[in-house]
Amino acid sequence: MASFERHVFVCQNVRPEGAPRPSCTADGKSELFTQLQQLTRAAGLGRAVRINKSGCLDQCEHGPVVVVYPETVWYGNVQTEDATAIVQEHLVNGQPVERLRLAPDCINTAACPHRP
Amino acid sequence: MASFERHVFVCQNVRPEGAPRPSCTADGKSELFTQLQQLTRAAGLGRAVRINKSGCLDQCEHGPVVVVYPETVWYGNVQTEDATAIVQEHLVNGQPVERLRLAPDCINTAACPHRP
Repeated sequence: MASFERHVFVCQNVRPEGAPRPSCTADGKSELFTQLQQLTRAAGLGRAVRINKSGCLDQCEHGPVVVVYPETVWYGNVQTEDATAIVQEHLVNGQPVERLRLAPDCINTAACPHRP
Repeated sequence: MASFERHVFVCQNVRPEGAPRPSCTADGKSELFTQLQQLTRAAGLGRAVRINKSGCLDQCEHGPVVVVYPETVWYGNVQTEDATAIVQEHLVNGQPVERLRLAPDCINTAACPHRP
């Protein structure tokens, strides 16, 4: 195979306490990342899909944030317990998890209901 | 705008000395990342294109590695001095830099001329 069928970036960013924008992880560790990785491998997608750590994805007010390429599906406020839905519904069955998607108006915006 | 027009992930991975696979950075710092970011901003693409740090992209034998989504263009053995070509030819003019592209047979393979 050449490129990954899907490449999933999970923000691991952590800022100092008191920073003006929030962090996607408390300490750079992400149980969400681990769960996504383990469930993807358990589903037999270990070579077709890569679960990747990333630095700040710049959607900090909507974190924890995940983006799936090449489809460009953005997920926000993703909790560890959402990993099963992302893997089963999206990575296995090809249907993005609508309830977790960031609204287009919330992506790369200087102001939205979550970023005053 | 909604999603980035292009999202460029620059591997920052560093492994301990003597690890079986090589690292994309010596110490987690990447002048390549800084150059890509500064040149992108200088070209007026600071909002349309995000230069992003990433964890291991799993193409370690071809590092330093960069991948551009949503087009899925993989670059390998990218040196700091290649940043200008990536920004000007690809991010500004829309033409991937062919001399830096990873061969499809070298992406996600267990063995290739660079990964014995």
